[in-house]
Amino acid sequence: MRPELHAFPPFQPPRRVLLGPGPSEVPPLVLQALARPTIGHLDPAFLSLMDETRQMLRAVFETDNTLTVPMSGTGSAGMETSLVNVVEPGDRVLVGVHGVFGVRMAEVARRAGAEVLEVHAEWGTPLDPDAMRKAALEFQPKVLALVHAETSTGVLLDLAPYRGICDEVGALLLTDMVTSLGGLRVEVDRHGVDIAYSGTQKCLSCPPGLSPVTFSARADEALTRRKRPVQSWYLDLSLIRDYWGASRAYHHTAPINMLYGLHEALRLVLDEGLVAREARHHATGRKFATAIEALGLELLVEPGSRLPPLTTVKVPPGVDEARVRKILLEQYGVEIGGGLGPLKGRVWRIGLMGHAATLVNCVIVVGALSATLRYVGHAAGVDLVEALRVMEAS
Amino acid sequence: MRPELHAFPPFQPPRRVLLGPGPSEVPPLVLQALARPTIGHLDPAFLSLMDETRQMLRAVFETDNTLTVPMSGTGSAGMETSLVNVVEPGDRVLVGVHGVFGVRMAEVARRAGAEVLEVHAEWGTPLDPDAMRKAALEFQPKVLALVHAETSTGVLLDLAPYRGICDEVGALLLTDMVTSLGGLRVEVDRHGVDIAYSGTQKCLSCPPGLSPVTFSARADEALTRRKRPVQSWYLDLSLIRDYWGASRAYHHTAPINMLYGLHEALRLVLDEGLVAREARHHATGRKFATAIEALGLELLVEPGSRLPPLTTVKVPPGVDEARVRKILLEQYGVEIGGGLGPLKGRVWRIGLMGHAATLVNCVIVVGALSATLRYVGHAAGVDLVEALRVMEAS
Repeated sequence: MRPELHAFPPFQPPRRVLLGPGPSEVPPLVLQALARPTIGHLDPAFLSLMDETRQMLRAVFETDNTLTVPMSGTGSAGMETSLVNVVEPGDRVLVGVHGVFGVRMAEVARRAGAEVLEVHAEWGTPLDPDAMRKAALEFQPKVLALVHAETSTGVLLDLAPYRGICDEVGALLLTDMVTSLGGLRVEVDRHGVDIAYSGTQKCLSCPPGLSPVTFSARADEALTRRKRPVQSWYLDLSLIRDYWGASRAYHHTAPINMLYGLHEALRLVLDEGLVAREARHHATGRKFATAIEALGLELLVEPGSRLPPLTTVKVPPGVDEARVRKILLEQYGVEIGGGLGPLKGRVWRIGLMGHAATLVNCVIVVGALSATLRYVGHAAGVDLVEALRVMEAS
Repeated sequence: MRPELHAFPPFQPPRRVLLGPGPSEVPPLVLQALARPTIGHLDPAFLSLMDETRQMLRAVFETDNTLTVPMSGTGSAGMETSLVNVVEPGDRVLVGVHGVFGVRMAEVARRAGAEVLEVHAEWGTPLDPDAMRKAALEFQPKVLALVHAETSTGVLLDLAPYRGICDEVGALLLTDMVTSLGGLRVEVDRHGVDIAYSGTQKCLSCPPGLSPVTFSARADEALTRRKRPVQSWYLDLSLIRDYWGASRAYHHTAPINMLYGLHEALRLVLDEGLVAREARHHATGRKFATAIEALGLELLVEPGSRLPPLTTVKVPPGVDEARVRKILLEQYGVEIGGGLGPLKGRVWRIGLMGHAATLVNCVIVVGALSATLRYVGHAAGVDLVEALRVMEAS
């Protein structure tokens, strides 16, 4: 036998303030829920937890969709679920791309055999509904896919124009709500969204590992009328709904403890209330933006399109942004994110999400960021006290 | 706005003794690890945890395979990962089917576009290597897939003959180790296994939610030489290995807290040692089988093919097996499993896995099962004390 490896010591995470693009800080009650004893995935007590979780998910998505479940994977599994369940080889998918997650949707759709047309907008600006409409009329897609809250750019899209466009061409409306669900109201039914997915590690304030999805009756019908089975067995909602539905047919062993966490996280969201929670995210995002601008820094996104839970701050010329993040992490224990794709090196991504969307976290990140910028030789004239005063007053 | 749902009360799991086919009981240290504060998926401290986890996974799989990672999904996601990364449309996959999980492998392979040939064995008996060899020589598959530890039947396969068969036809050897890894030695390298997957919720004694997989250099080469991208973006190992490897390229947000749990669970496995752990599973499985037979009950599987962590007990004629399980769960808090597929109603599946493979759990399930059988009108002549004495002496 090969020599056995000696086990490593237990892992103790360092103390962190998570103010990046996710995962966000998880409240103690949710962490405690994760640690409750595991029970069976067919235990009647667990089936009750599943029912309650579905009801709370519907409330948070603001939908009556029966097919509303947390998928057993992270947000990207939710994206793949959303696409592979309705796309068959040769189907047309129109994707609005204004950041990394639009690029990814197009890629996932192509791998499912779709013919994909992409409509692009500059990263940091929202998609143009007129361009999407024009493309939809020409391309006649089965699915129109877009990102409600683009985590890579900090842009929030107005969903209002898209149901009408989809109705004109008979398309399903599919949206990424990874960084909006649980922080902002998403109003799936009011906006006529057919398919939406999210992740647990952003505004829901639960660790990563699950992906809530919701399918409208129309999307469900598209799934039911497929000619071929869904290419992914693991993500096949026609099987998964039988486990979450009345028949309780075993599909895969549900991630029990993660679902304890999500149940608790959803409880906390609904205890606060969706309206109050959205107001808190708006207020915190606005105050943070005000303070950043008062420091003399620039934001990537124009006021009307800003995503309150996730702000993209332009890196000032001459500043080594990775060094700033390293100092913030090592000296302050504060995590913020860097840019992705074409925004790499050009922006910081700062999240004030869910449980962590608080004024005190604004003070932490504004204070630590200004001190670090001065330390690396930038921002000589910054008046932090004045910036915080303006923030408080905003 | 629609009326907001009032949140449900916090979930308190009932007290259970998990002696079914999984999830198995999770030790307190692993539960505590789950509840540690979430940190970022690119935090240097988390990257260290990932490195340690990979090293410990390699030790438990008994392999030097570089490409050894926990997938962000349950065991079925590992199965799909194992197949979709090496199968391209038109590739031939030979599947040995002697239970539910062989059936599922064939289905997943077909959905990936494979031409599938199934070789069947009666459920409760092992696959016949001669039949597999004959089929392999005729069919010339790219992949030969089989289930090392069939959780649906309680059969453990001897892997020894299969490397030779695969070498004769140049096939990759793919195995399901869901109910063996962490309980029995799997010796991936010694058996020349190219691809293996497992789940965390069986003998590793971690909650469900992750699926360890390992790919040999040969399997990795098959992945690298693909003509088309892997159909699943979420499960694409050519991308995932960049996150787990030196470049740390972001793919999806790792399930942080579940990985805390797996790290701790692997520590406990290696602290005990693979040899000692296998001996404990063998001893417990044997003692349990002895006691069950002393009670006058029959086992589905012959002694030479029994899977020590999971025993299938035949339901005596005239007994309502679901009623027995219900009484065990409701009156004793003891969970055991029913049969699947053709074994539904015909067997109970009783797991003594990982942390829970103990003599005291044998007493619990043997005692509760005999009392319940007498309660439902069966087993009038059973001498429980004698059965337990025989068990202890075995």
